[in-house]
Amino acid sequence: MRVMGIDPGLTRCGVGVVEGRPGAPGRMIAVGVVRTDPEAPLADRLLALDDGLRAHIEDHRPEAVAVERVFSQHNVASVIGTAQASGIALLAAARAGIPTATYTPSEAKAAVCGNGTADKRQVTTMVTRVLRLSEPPKPADAADALAIAICHLWRGGMKARLAAAQSEQSRGPR
Amino acid sequence: MRVMGIDPGLTRCGVGVVEGRPGAPGRMIAVGVVRTDPEAPLADRLLALDDGLRAHIEDHRPEAVAVERVFSQHNVASVIGTAQASGIALLAAARAGIPTATYTPSEAKAAVCGNGTADKRQVTTMVTRVLRLSEPPKPADAADALAIAICHLWRGGMKARLAAAQSEQSRGPR
Repeated sequence: MRVMGIDPGLTRCGVGVVEGRPGAPGRMIAVGVVRTDPEAPLADRLLALDDGLRAHIEDHRPEAVAVERVFSQHNVASVIGTAQASGIALLAAARAGIPTATYTPSEAKAAVCGNGTADKRQVTTMVTRVLRLSEPPKPADAADALAIAICHLWRGGMKARLAAAQSEQSRGPR
Repeated sequence: MRVMGIDPGLTRCGVGVVEGRPGAPGRMIAVGVVRTDPEAPLADRLLALDDGLRAHIEDHRPEAVAVERVFSQHNVASVIGTAQASGIALLAAARAGIPTATYTPSEAKAAVCGNGTADKRQVTTMVTRVLRLSEPPKPADAADALAIAICHLWRGGMKARLAAAQSEQSRGPR
């Protein structure tokens, strides 16, 4: 399964595409950042972000898009821009007919590092290890987008196994 | 000039189209609310909102789109959804090549009521009077969208007059 992870931001929006299956190491297909000019009018920035994300979706044709969930506990000054960027990301996926999921930063960290409060360095280390990269992903702030993609792959797998186990159980008494 | 005002919201997004010129009473062209299902997945709601706003833009072909600016001082629980809706609104306008502007709620209230702290009832009363409507606009929560459109018409006019005065003055000593 091919998953695109998106770490939403108006100035820098991380994109990471991973192919793999639950429980196995994944393979990095692409990593990048869509940047918009902080001096440009807001509507132009949103349009540039939408164009950039659509191009990534078209190029890599993911089967799912996972977006980091925005929390109001974030820095209040940046939460509005981050929320707008996450809205554009979810819209771009929905417009392309691709299923979406959202994960909190701690869910992504817990999936990759086994610890929901892992720091940025730990996330980068584990993403590099899990994807068997020869060096940390660049740009550095795209590591979070890869972590979100890995989180979706692995959690999706857990959900599927759980559903299978429940369905087996519900087949009745052995 | 024809202006579309948008009062962004994820569950209810107000849309009001006004035609007029600065200083003169405007004419209401259209008023409505784009609703999305609060029970639906977020990406589907954003897509429904985008579809609804695009349809309004295509139907009414405004020359400018004015969107109420989101403030972090708003109710924290709803600010993320409102920010996402405002991002979708600005994107829809930019995608259609229409210039955008944003105004704070107090700017819109001050433009219509002469008072930035006017309450909802006062805004509805003044919008009804300014647009010479026989009864208050329906749905009731679309009055804010009309106020934002009126605000843009009138403030745009003030800016144009100011620019003209400055250009006249800069022609040199009389």
